[in-house]
Amino acid sequence: MTTVVKDMLSTYPADLGNVDREKMARCIEECLACAQACTACADACLSEGMVGDLTKCIRTDMDCADICTATAAVLSRHTGYDANITRAILTACATACKACAEECERHAGMDHCRVCAEACRRCEQACNDLLGSLG
Amino acid sequence: MTTVVKDMLSTYPADLGNVDREKMARCIEECLACAQACTACADACLSEGMVGDLTKCIRTDMDCADICTATAAVLSRHTGYDANITRAILTACATACKACAEECERHAGMDHCRVCAEACRRCEQACNDLLGSLG
Amino acid sequence: MTTVVKDMLSTYPADLGNVDREKMARCIEECLACAQACTACADACLSEGMVGDLTKCIRTDMDCADICTATAAVLSRHTGYDANITRAILTACATACKACAEECERHAGMDHCRVCAEACRRCEQACNDLLGSLG
Amino acid sequence: MTTVVKDMLSTYPADLGNVDREKMARCIEECLACAQACTACADACLSEGMVGDLTKCIRTDMDCADICTATAAVLSRHTGYDANITRAILTACATACKACAEECERHAGMDHCRVCAEACRRCEQACNDLLGSLG
Repeated sequence: MTTVVKDMLSTYPADLGNVDREKMARCIEECLACAQACTACADACLSEGMVGDLTKCIRTDMDCADICTATAAVLSRHTGYDANITRAILTACATACKACAEECERHAGMDHCRVCAEACRRCEQACNDLLGSLG
Repeated sequence: MTTVVKDMLSTYPADLGNVDREKMARCIEECLACAQACTACADACLSEGMVGDLTKCIRTDMDCADICTATAAVLSRHTGYDANITRAILTACATACKACAEECERHAGMDHCRVCAEACRRCEQACNDLLGSLG
Repeated sequence: MTTVVKDMLSTYPADLGNVDREKMARCIEECLACAQACTACADACLSEGMVGDLTKCIRTDMDCADICTATAAVLSRHTGYDANITRAILTACATACKACAEECERHAGMDHCRVCAEACRRCEQACNDLLGSLG
Repeated sequence: MTTVVKDMLSTYPADLGNVDREKMARCIEECLACAQACTACADACLSEGMVGDLTKCIRTDMDCADICTATAAVLSRHTGYDANITRAILTACATACKACAEECERHAGMDHCRVCAEACRRCEQACNDLLGSLG
C-alpha cells in the first residue's frame, strides 16, 4: 500500500510544485487506513451487546469514513491544483478524525475502538502536518 | 427524489433538534444533484475535442463530486449530531462548489459546463444557507 | 434533480450510442435516491430503542448505499463505455437493493424502513430495466 | 495499513464464520490500493500532452476507483453478512479491475499506467481468490 501511493506520486508526469511528498503520501495513506478502520469499527459496534450505548460512536465512525475517503481522493489529484479546496477538505478531515478519536477513546476498553482511535489520531496528525506544509 | 429526502427526514424517529428542515432537505438534494452533474461534466469534458484545455475543469469536477457525495451522507445522519463536523464539511463543500462553478463558468459556451455551473451555484448557496441556520 | 440528470444527459457532446435515455436517467436518479434513503434509514435505525434488533438492517442499508453511489457514478459516464463494467455494477446494485428491500420490509411498521424499502424496490426495478435494455 | 486492516479484523467482537481471514484482509487492502492508484492514474493521464488519446483510460480508472472503494467498504463489514451482496460486488470489482488493467497495459510505457495496471491485476486476483473461498 505504502509502495503504491509513493509510486503513483513519483510517476506523476508533471511538476508537483512545492508539495512535501513525504507528508502528502503519508496523509493519503492515513486517510485510507482511517476510512477502513472507521467502517470496520462502526460494524464492530453493531455486533456489541451494548450497541444501544454506541450509537454516537457508530455515527461518528461513518462520517469520518466518508470524509477520509473524499480527502484521500482529492489528495491523489495534482492536476489543476486548487489550494482552497485542499485546505478546506483537510480541515474537515482533521475535524472529523479528532471527533471520532475522542468518541472511540471513550470506549477504548473495546479493542476495535482502541485501534480505530489510534488510526483517527494518526490521520488527524497527518492532515494537520500537511496543512502546515502548504504555503 | 425531493420526496424521498423529505420523507426520510419526516420519518426520523427521534428529535431533530433545532434544524431547519427545509434548508436541510434542500441542501442534501443539491449536494446529490451537484455530485451527479460534476461527475457527468467531467465525463462530457473528456469527449470534447479540446479536452487538453479542460483538464483543470475535469479535476475540479471530480473533487467537487467527491466532496458533495460525502456532504450528502453526513447531512443524512442525525443521530449523535456533532456541529463541528457538520460545519467543517459544509464549509469544504461550499468552497469546492464555488471553485467548480467559477471554473465551469469559464466554459459556459459548452452546455454541460453551463448546466454544471448552475448546479454548483445552487449547492454552494444551499450549503451557505444551511450553515447560516446552524446555531 | 430529475432536471439535472436529464440535462446532463442531453448536453453530452458525443454520441450516446443505443442507450435508452429514459431508462438511463431514471436509473441514475433511483440510485441517488436509494443511496440517500439507505444512509438515512441506517441512521434512523440507530435512534430506535430496539436498535439491537436492527443490526442486520443497518448493515444492509450501508452496503446498499455504497453500491448505489458507485452505480450512479458509473452510469453518469458515457465516454469509453465498457458494457461489462456497466452490467456487473448494475447486477450488484439490483442484488443489494433486493436484499435491502427485503430486510426493510420486515420492519415496515417503522416508517423509515417502509419509505426506504420502497426506494430500494424502485431502484432494483430501474437497474433491471436498464440491464434489459442493454444489447 | 496492512496492520490496521488485520487489527480491525482480529478485534471484531463476534464470530466471523468461515471467512478466510488472510484472503479477506488481502482483498480489502488491494481494493484500497487499487482505488488510490486508479484515482491518481486518471489524474496523471490528465497531465499528459496526449490526454486526448487517454480518455477511455481515464474513464475506466474512475469507474474502477468507485467500485473498488465500495467493495472495500462492503468487505469491511461482517455483521448481518449477506453472501449474495458480497459475491455480486466482488464480481463487479474483478470485472472493473480486469478492464482497467487491460486498458492501462496498453499504455504501460507511461509509468503511472504501468504501476496502476499492476495494482489492478493484484486487486482482480485478490477478488477472485476471495470469491473462490466463499462457500
